[in-house]
Amino acid sequence: MWQQVEITLNAYSRGFHLITADIEHALNELSPVRYGLLHLFIKHSSASLTINENADPTVRDDMERHFNQFVPENAPYYRHTYEGPDDMPAHIKASTLGSSVSVPLSNGKMNLGLWQGVYLGEHRDYAGSRTVVLTVSGE
Amino acid sequence: MWQQVEITLNAYSRGFHLITADIEHALNELSPVRYGLLHLFIKHSSASLTINENADPTVRDDMERHFNQFVPENAPYYRHTYEGPDDMPAHIKASTLGSSVSVPLSNGKMNLGLWQGVYLGEHRDYAGSRTVVLTVSGE
Amino acid sequence: MWQQVEITLNAYSRGFHLITADIEHALNELSPVRYGLLHLFIKHSSASLTINENADPTVRDDMERHFNQFVPENAPYYRHTYEGPDDMPAHIKASTLGSSVSVPLSNGKMNLGLWQGVYLGEHRDYAGSRTVVLTVSGE
Repeated sequence: MWQQVEITLNAYSRGFHLITADIEHALNELSPVRYGLLHLFIKHSSASLTINENADPTVRDDMERHFNQFVPENAPYYRHTYEGPDDMPAHIKASTLGSSVSVPLSNGKMNLGLWQGVYLGEHRDYAGSRTVVLTVSGE
Repeated sequence: MWQQVEITLNAYSRGFHLITADIEHALNELSPVRYGLLHLFIKHSSASLTINENADPTVRDDMERHFNQFVPENAPYYRHTYEGPDDMPAHIKASTLGSSVSVPLSNGKMNLGLWQGVYLGEHRDYAGSRTVVLTVSGE
Repeated sequence: MWQQVEITLNAYSRGFHLITADIEHALNELSPVRYGLLHLFIKHSSASLTINENADPTVRDDMERHFNQFVPENAPYYRHTYEGPDDMPAHIKASTLGSSVSVPLSNGKMNLGLWQGVYLGEHRDYAGSRTVVLTVSGE
């Protein structure tokens, strides 16, 4: 059984944001599978999806500060700079963190660890809403 | 055909560890698929799964030293510090490396390159055993 | 429906290269699926696959310069050095960027964003051709 739907996330500020509830909401609109996989794909090259700690907002803040330090703006070796200082770092963060996550589905729900959630990494200063494709497979 | 099983890895010390044999062992308990995918998902936000070189232990040691250098402990910008200096770096490494890997299955076996193996990245100083969900799909 | 094929990419120079057309070409040889997933897996531990910007070659060049800066050659802590200064950095880049990408398939085509393409990360100075396994599933 295969199901696929595109959802539009709210526009978020630059940083990491917990979107587990948005994903669960979209998943609840689909037919549940007993065993399977949920694949999430973000259709943008300056934002990312990742799995991380779901409880303490300072984790998301520390992630943002860390990646700003190690994927700096205005590095002297950047050539792709015409959309602003956040442009090239956003592309590098997108590849470092990845454009997709996949999560096991068990009894119709995401089988995440107790402390895991789905993060949107919004890497642009002023981005609009982002599109995510959900693909559900299983039986 | 969909199959899913959770396994518990032995507790490992901080660093990178080859767990290909553990995965093969669990896979051998399931019905083989001719063409398909094996999806591995670690249910923790301070450990990771990745694919890398399977022969020389110094690769795993160099990985550990590299990530300790570029995801440092005690960075002045960390706020999420109450579980110790290894806490926030563990979360950042988990997202940088990822919580899942997926490997093609061909004739019932993981279709890895000759020099590839599955690594556990254990990013905490004193972690217990870790849970990994295997999802096998194919035909 | 499951389909699997291995393709051999041309040998590329060190750096990031857009291989979307190669993937589309291989995909066109397979039976199209209405909804599904394309899984790409590179069978090497010193090269990577990632999704990023598909239009401006300076993005690929900036990615190469960035990763050379933050995964440096000749770091004093490397022990795995006998294949040359590009050896250990190649392994670290492979794990940071990942050995696989998966892309939703919709109406027989990769459902990428307008500005997204598939990149090969070639991390060795003198590598030969690289093997990629395509696994297509869906209905």
